[in-house]
Amino acid sequence: MSATRAYAAQASDQPLTPFNFERRQPRPDDVAIEILYCGVCHSDLHFARNDWGFSQYPLVPGHEIVGRVTSVGDDVSQFKVGDMVGVGCMVDSCRHCQACADGVEQYCLEGMTMTYGSPDRQDGTMTQGGYSDSVVVSEHFVLRMPEGLDPAAAAPILCAGITTYSPLVHYGVKPGHKVGVIGMGGLGHMGVKLAKALGAEVTVFTRTEAKVEEARRQGADHVVVSGDDTQMEAVAETYDFMLDTVPVQHDLNPYLATLKYDGIHIMVGLVEPIEPAIQGANLVFKRRVLAGSLIGGIPETQELLDFCAEHNITCDIETINIQDINTAYERMEKGDVRYRFVIDMASLKD
Amino acid sequence: MSATRAYAAQASDQPLTPFNFERRQPRPDDVAIEILYCGVCHSDLHFARNDWGFSQYPLVPGHEIVGRVTSVGDDVSQFKVGDMVGVGCMVDSCRHCQACADGVEQYCLEGMTMTYGSPDRQDGTMTQGGYSDSVVVSEHFVLRMPEGLDPAAAAPILCAGITTYSPLVHYGVKPGHKVGVIGMGGLGHMGVKLAKALGAEVTVFTRTEAKVEEARRQGADHVVVSGDDTQMEAVAETYDFMLDTVPVQHDLNPYLATLKYDGIHIMVGLVEPIEPAIQGANLVFKRRVLAGSLIGGIPETQELLDFCAEHNITCDIETINIQDINTAYERMEKGDVRYRFVIDMASLKD
Repeated sequence: MSATRAYAAQASDQPLTPFNFERRQPRPDDVAIEILYCGVCHSDLHFARNDWGFSQYPLVPGHEIVGRVTSVGDDVSQFKVGDMVGVGCMVDSCRHCQACADGVEQYCLEGMTMTYGSPDRQDGTMTQGGYSDSVVVSEHFVLRMPEGLDPAAAAPILCAGITTYSPLVHYGVKPGHKVGVIGMGGLGHMGVKLAKALGAEVTVFTRTEAKVEEARRQGADHVVVSGDDTQMEAVAETYDFMLDTVPVQHDLNPYLATLKYDGIHIMVGLVEPIEPAIQGANLVFKRRVLAGSLIGGIPETQELLDFCAEHNITCDIETINIQDINTAYERMEKGDVRYRFVIDMASLKD
Repeated sequence: MSATRAYAAQASDQPLTPFNFERRQPRPDDVAIEILYCGVCHSDLHFARNDWGFSQYPLVPGHEIVGRVTSVGDDVSQFKVGDMVGVGCMVDSCRHCQACADGVEQYCLEGMTMTYGSPDRQDGTMTQGGYSDSVVVSEHFVLRMPEGLDPAAAAPILCAGITTYSPLVHYGVKPGHKVGVIGMGGLGHMGVKLAKALGAEVTVFTRTEAKVEEARRQGADHVVVSGDDTQMEAVAETYDFMLDTVPVQHDLNPYLATLKYDGIHIMVGLVEPIEPAIQGANLVFKRRVLAGSLIGGIPETQELLDFCAEHNITCDIETINIQDINTAYERMEKGDVRYRFVIDMASLKD
């Protein structure tokens, strides 16, 4: 066991505070990692505050982890001490079901083991995340960070990046396709970069004129102000895909109307009831599809990291010290971040 | 112009009554058809009663037409006098857009011309359907009826059949797949037969015990009583596809839960707002898909007719005289038909 420094939530209504605990002794297939950077995902905030009702405390959030290997178990073959590595949203799965065999461990039939807030499959202890100075993870869930990717700016690729990349690739986005991206937050701005890199013509949908220039700066070919009926009508039946990153309830019908026949509306953020109600006619009359997608599997996450290195894609980030995490959460709630906070874990030593 | 005997609705609140009108002089690409049988679709009733708000009167319903060619225009190359032919839900489309080029004329970017209730693309007159003794249709929208298919029992293949076949083929249903069918009406019982013929293992979902035996008689491998929570829980995450033929509002969430990850819920009947609301989590957490589908294109309708002849598949029908059409509508409203009324158009001569 090794002493680990971290920041944890001790209760849903408490700010994150310093917390010391022990990481497990590395098992034969484990990689021990010194964490250098950890991205701050909106779901960290939901977990810390128990918004989804199943948080257990103390809870160390963080699932956009980049660090350096400090030791490896005897059976580890893919990593060695000193390697730059990443850990995303999962640290284990059953490893034998069809989903695991297909490399989409996030859909493991027995349920994935999340990087924090899940019981470990072997000893039952709760997993703890990346707002800490070290982590111990089976090599099967460790990603290789390619040369040339800034480690801090690459950290959010492990959640915000893969969440948008996975469905774009699953549904075969390629040159010639027109892709709409709804929402310009951590996920949305990565969606724009990735859809562009896959060769698509990208349109950002934003609620306000204020974000039009910013969307273009992120690489959008076109921007549509979604509150402007004239602009929305002008793009009726235009898109092959809509990447919907909005995590709160919103009316999908105006966006469905902008899809071509056979168009696909991909939701990666909305897990609540879909209200206002979808008009069945908006799907039936044009053979349109409403699809959900959750993060991505380990093989495709590695593929994405390599793709990002090749295309020089990282996340737009604001680096913070761990001591500023509670302020960062407050700013995130106001949408005041472009586009991801990343914790410089060196600050944990202060 | 040729005098045509028919039954028409003259107003939304009136029963269908005898109606005489003129069909157009055949154009060079037209086929003139003596109608022998016409199926009675639930949408005929909706149109007759103006349930969707855009009916124009007088209105002759009917889009499951089987008959014999009586004359052909000079440019017609695929049909000759005496051929047994069918006409389904469409009689024209723009013929040059991507959808038309793809053979899915029902999604024509300029809008298909429906068999009844649409303005003709050349002369603007309203199309009139198959509750009549003849019809004139461009050969591009005429289907060849294969030898060996009973013409009366084959008529509903042109709507009820293709509506269920099209999405099953579009989504690649094949041996090894598990398909659920919701609703055992005209569409549902064809869905069972067609999914079975495509090699799938088929489960019928029915609200009541009363239909269990009947579902098995139709060829279902399994039957689940959807109101029985224990039975529904026993089939959680089981199906690759759900074919949902229910045309009225119902809760999709219990059915979504029975789909595997990557499972596809296909709606062919519901054009109303989808309420109760779909839980976003039911799609996102398992990469499930909610898809709509509308009838089918001309090439795939011909493919289906040939497939039905090969597999000896027709619709279960009850043949009626045209004079009984209003009683038939009343019985349809009560669900009292197994599974499709088909009008013997010889009765129009009485």
